[in-house]
Amino acid sequence: MTGIAEGSTKHFRCTIADGIATVALDRPERKNPLTFESYAELRDWFRALRYEDAIKAVVFTSNGGNFSSGGDVHDIIGPLLSKDMKGLLEFTRMTGDLVKAMIGCGKPIVAAVDGVCVGAGAIVAMASDIRIATADARTAFLFTRVGLAGCDMGACAILPRIIGQSRAAELLYTGRAMSAEEGERWGFYSRIVEPEALEAEADAIARRIAAGPTFGHMMTKTMLNQEWNMSLEQAIEAEAQAQAICMQTKDFKRAYDAFVAKQKPVFGGD
Amino acid sequence: MTGIAEGSTKHFRCTIADGIATVALDRPERKNPLTFESYAELRDWFRALRYEDAIKAVVFTSNGGNFSSGGDVHDIIGPLLSKDMKGLLEFTRMTGDLVKAMIGCGKPIVAAVDGVCVGAGAIVAMASDIRIATADARTAFLFTRVGLAGCDMGACAILPRIIGQSRAAELLYTGRAMSAEEGERWGFYSRIVEPEALEAEADAIARRIAAGPTFGHMMTKTMLNQEWNMSLEQAIEAEAQAQAICMQTKDFKRAYDAFVAKQKPVFGGD
Amino acid sequence: MTGIAEGSTKHFRCTIADGIATVALDRPERKNPLTFESYAELRDWFRALRYEDAIKAVVFTSNGGNFSSGGDVHDIIGPLLSKDMKGLLEFTRMTGDLVKAMIGCGKPIVAAVDGVCVGAGAIVAMASDIRIATADARTAFLFTRVGLAGCDMGACAILPRIIGQSRAAELLYTGRAMSAEEGERWGFYSRIVEPEALEAEADAIARRIAAGPTFGHMMTKTMLNQEWNMSLEQAIEAEAQAQAICMQTKDFKRAYDAFVAKQKPVFGGD
Repeated sequence: MTGIAEGSTKHFRCTIADGIATVALDRPERKNPLTFESYAELRDWFRALRYEDAIKAVVFTSNGGNFSSGGDVHDIIGPLLSKDMKGLLEFTRMTGDLVKAMIGCGKPIVAAVDGVCVGAGAIVAMASDIRIATADARTAFLFTRVGLAGCDMGACAILPRIIGQSRAAELLYTGRAMSAEEGERWGFYSRIVEPEALEAEADAIARRIAAGPTFGHMMTKTMLNQEWNMSLEQAIEAEAQAQAICMQTKDFKRAYDAFVAKQKPVFGGD
Repeated sequence: MTGIAEGSTKHFRCTIADGIATVALDRPERKNPLTFESYAELRDWFRALRYEDAIKAVVFTSNGGNFSSGGDVHDIIGPLLSKDMKGLLEFTRMTGDLVKAMIGCGKPIVAAVDGVCVGAGAIVAMASDIRIATADARTAFLFTRVGLAGCDMGACAILPRIIGQSRAAELLYTGRAMSAEEGERWGFYSRIVEPEALEAEADAIARRIAAGPTFGHMMTKTMLNQEWNMSLEQAIEAEAQAQAICMQTKDFKRAYDAFVAKQKPVFGGD
Repeated sequence: MTGIAEGSTKHFRCTIADGIATVALDRPERKNPLTFESYAELRDWFRALRYEDAIKAVVFTSNGGNFSSGGDVHDIIGPLLSKDMKGLLEFTRMTGDLVKAMIGCGKPIVAAVDGVCVGAGAIVAMASDIRIATADARTAFLFTRVGLAGCDMGACAILPRIIGQSRAAELLYTGRAMSAEEGERWGFYSRIVEPEALEAEADAIARRIAAGPTFGHMMTKTMLNQEWNMSLEQAIEAEAQAQAICMQTKDFKRAYDAFVAKQKPVFGGD
């Protein structure tokens, strides 16, 4: 069982069309909080996605005007207070495993962010590959507001690489919301779109990517994360190997043949 | 002896109020140069700060319209010219140890930069966690102007993470001043404020941070630096452990109780 | 033989004046593609440059209104299709070795980018230390368009450090062109200049750098790359050692003597 098929998920919404999986948390009346169950199911879903060739890209979208309100205070924080260290670490590792699964799934993820995008919701956006937002998006790494540290699910490693060390530090210490305008200016959001166009725009980006050489995309995603803490010399050698592998794909020949024939290439992902 | 108490410092100014230590170099008539003595005393002070629970955050502020003119030409560069390699390395390690002490002190540092902020002064600003500036701030990593390399006190590692590799390279090779406007646009300064509001604004940021879960802040600061060269997988596991520790603090429960009671949490730092 | 002397290069243009080497690809009628021969010769040239004291800085400039169209489809991609893995890896390592040679050459490289700057051409710009461009510069890491991955010649390691992880991911997945305006705003280009002023501006930056302490510049370049994946503590110790070495150069004394005499220092690079 992979759990990837449309309609097979219980704790989040998932539709699949033309090789694009569109997922969203699905409690819009509460701004889409995460729960123990949705964390675990998302983690398992992204892990299974790694082996699902038919899906080429993912859109993680908003629902009812909001992306996610993060870990639910009643459903998650309350129960955590009675856990011992073993139970706490089990929880924080589960949340971290969701980020690892997103990073390791081999398909580009496009986040479409509207409204509230806070706590673990902001982390899900951060762990995606490309993000777009509406002008109303309010993105807050608000862990300090619930009495915790900013180091949650990889934030102290990933956020500085996206927006710079200083801006990340300010957001993580204060827990304040980053406006959509700041997010675009700082490189967190690729662009700001109208709310009614948000999902269609994210879908268009995902389709454009999915129409490309998807074996190559998997390798790009792998190396963007794999080279994170390599030396420059190591990274250049690692890319020499990775790209040599890609030069043996049919897509490399397809692109060449199309170029010579003055046509647009049709890629197959192999 | 910790040397943290107000009035106990000889070579820089230090006042303490409401858990905030405000420090500044104190030779405003010479734009606050660093000397062998102030380097060493600052290093020792930030080292001692690590064990000083009563101080929750630091403001490193300007004095007389300038932040710092860096290592003094007469007091430092002159004497260095007659030192042998052992003596030179002793000096460069002392300056590096100041940065290590700032990074390792466990409390967020807010730099309030007005006017001249150059050489080792620019490094002190860079090694702080959050920076604000006036429109008159002129920040220059001018080591090339004194015949040296841009690699001073961690600049080649830290500056690229704040403003990007290319902008850092240009500043470090040319030694030119970064304007306040560039600094804000590039993510070095969080914002530009009026000179008369500078210290009050920095104090407000420090107070907001100090009113938060300070054990969590210590962990955020630790992890922002600890994860610097971890792999993504390592960083995520490290944060799972760090955040699980924070979930055993009373501040985590205080935030939950306040939320349930629809009140604002009052954190205790434990 | 170093192959550094003016006129000694066969597959690219090279002029030398006042310690500045100005190089350019030289097939302007085809927008300056790279070929097996020019890759190899550039690699060897930058390797030899490491030992060439008389050259203090490099300008990599455009030619006929374009920087470079990258690896030629007919001259490179066609032949690659018939190579086995050994042959492919030999090629990708040769291209990676060009980047390693640029990074390891010890002299700052200023790229002057006009018009088309794509594929391996964009990589050459990226591997330079400082970049300026005209408003017409179109910079595309278009490897996906030829059926390959974005991980080419170090792009997944270097580009995120210059423009941030998210903007780099978008460019590498989609292969879309980054406009000159985006390039400046994102920190890839230091500034935008008029086409007719492009080479003169790049030359002026190179001359300003070359007039500085070039031993120090070599150390700055070394450490900017060497510290890439060091811990903060390691980087600070590495800089303490590197700067102590620079404090034994004559240029350090020259700067001090000039300061005391209220003159402008004349550096010698030793």
